[in-house]
Amino acid sequence: MIKAGILGYGNLGRGVEAAIARNEDMTLAAVYTRRDPGNLKINTPGVPVKSAEALEGGEEDIDVLIICGGSATDLPAMTPKYAALYNVVDSFDTHANIPQHFANVDTAAAAAGRLGLISCGWDPGMFSLNRLYAASVLPGGEAYTFWGRGVSQGHSDAIRRIEGVVDARQYTVPVPDAVARVRAGENPELTTREKHTRECYVVAAEGADKARIEQEIKTMPNYFSDYDTTVTFITAEEMKEKHSGLPHGGSVIYTGETGQKGMKHVIEYSLKLDSNPEFTGSVLAAYARAVVRLNAEGRTGGVTVFDIAPAYLSPLSGEELRAHCL
Amino acid sequence: MIKAGILGYGNLGRGVEAAIARNEDMTLAAVYTRRDPGNLKINTPGVPVKSAEALEGGEEDIDVLIICGGSATDLPAMTPKYAALYNVVDSFDTHANIPQHFANVDTAAAAAGRLGLISCGWDPGMFSLNRLYAASVLPGGEAYTFWGRGVSQGHSDAIRRIEGVVDARQYTVPVPDAVARVRAGENPELTTREKHTRECYVVAAEGADKARIEQEIKTMPNYFSDYDTTVTFITAEEMKEKHSGLPHGGSVIYTGETGQKGMKHVIEYSLKLDSNPEFTGSVLAAYARAVVRLNAEGRTGGVTVFDIAPAYLSPLSGEELRAHCL
Repeated sequence: MIKAGILGYGNLGRGVEAAIARNEDMTLAAVYTRRDPGNLKINTPGVPVKSAEALEGGEEDIDVLIICGGSATDLPAMTPKYAALYNVVDSFDTHANIPQHFANVDTAAAAAGRLGLISCGWDPGMFSLNRLYAASVLPGGEAYTFWGRGVSQGHSDAIRRIEGVVDARQYTVPVPDAVARVRAGENPELTTREKHTRECYVVAAEGADKARIEQEIKTMPNYFSDYDTTVTFITAEEMKEKHSGLPHGGSVIYTGETGQKGMKHVIEYSLKLDSNPEFTGSVLAAYARAVVRLNAEGRTGGVTVFDIAPAYLSPLSGEELRAHCL
Repeated sequence: MIKAGILGYGNLGRGVEAAIARNEDMTLAAVYTRRDPGNLKINTPGVPVKSAEALEGGEEDIDVLIICGGSATDLPAMTPKYAALYNVVDSFDTHANIPQHFANVDTAAAAAGRLGLISCGWDPGMFSLNRLYAASVLPGGEAYTFWGRGVSQGHSDAIRRIEGVVDARQYTVPVPDAVARVRAGENPELTTREKHTRECYVVAAEGADKARIEQEIKTMPNYFSDYDTTVTFITAEEMKEKHSGLPHGGSVIYTGETGQKGMKHVIEYSLKLDSNPEFTGSVLAAYARAVVRLNAEGRTGGVTVFDIAPAYLSPLSGEELRAHCL
């Protein structure tokens, strides 16, 4: 049995917890929190909730710690810190800072004889794998990534910070025509605006100036100003009824050529997810298994999904995999 | 530069040759043939064509031998034989015999300090990887594999063996309704007949009994009797004009659930290929790179695509991959 700890019990931490429950060779040893453990009730009966401070001495009886924090400030500090004490897995997704984060985790884990996997999930994660496999098989081709239709929590949060907004949900939506052109092998050059639209559902405070809110959303730099954005005001009841889930998904579409005649090939990987955090948590759980096994074989330092042979993710033996999956 | 040899110069051998030409870190060292090398003209200028006998002493200056033979009789003998002399890659696809073939290659390669990769291509190969990744992330789900629309060379050959048939091309076609039900997460139980149909285009000899030919095709056991099969007689000119390519493709669709509420997720990997042998050859070339690198690190014995970390397939460094693909 692989004993896993979860640090952080937000949407992602609960997603990992749910995933561990469906993996028969894994058990949830403890949930660690920076909040008051006495106030935190988790879904798994009989599993202790502890203060994050309990992790400090490196003496917790866990094979791997799955760190479920935010990429902005939590993970850059937490993952290197705990990689010096435990095998760790995180879902760091601030692209520009991956080299620095990787270096920090690699140094800490290598010195401690531990293994630290960063940037795991579906993007970065499963989508990254598919970009790499496709580019390796068809060198010189073009990779397109489309996200959605799905809820972007970062964009939803950005809308909620606007004055007069009570609640908000933002869906990222791929432009169907762009997807169709890529699938057809046209290899189009697409601007940000041509690839995705943004649909916003907003509950406004009573008496709030809706025209101003809509204008503030549509002109918000980085988040919305480069996109065709629609804003729909709804009631709190409608928000609860129709927009309480966290669905997501998307596609990596890679087109490339072979041979002297330029034969065309299209490789497409797509996800349609009812729950973004539960799927992401499931990816983290499978990779936690791989990290424990690889470290047991003596592998240490920092790694990404690129460095892990697929067989390590599965509880099945090599014989079973060759017989049933190959 | 990775020096690759190709053994066997049929459709697949030419596909590997075309792939090597598009990989800047690989060079084609020689093509080996069991036919008379003097009669074989290959597409790459300046590359020697040699008798397969030249491989016997293990002294050819190649880093890896890509064996492009048939699974029925060629590969079971050839891959273990040459795995005792060189690093090898094959595309063995007789599913039931994979365990025995793997054992033979593993034993030969391990004893010689070489690495032998079997069953590489797209199915087995890229499709297998996607079945494994999906099943590892969503345990307890269901994998569906659909092939086509594409030319099955085995089925085309089977038709050509019927008396009165001059030429034939058979397309395997997924049933759209079955694909739609799987994509919708219905988890249907599907019979062979419900998953695929078979379209046959046949050039009959002058005066041949077309009704008898059609009957023989539709009742042929294993190949056609379990499928809804259509037979269309065409002229030799039409065959050449419309059916001279070898397109193929298909999808692996995996559906699974997470959490206590049973959130549904659909993972789909699909290929749309203008040329089956050129794409398969491209997969073999990328894995040949991985085999050379892994053997240089000391890895020996038998492996499949499951055992190879994705980063080994790419000519890019770990830093480059983390910066551009992750």
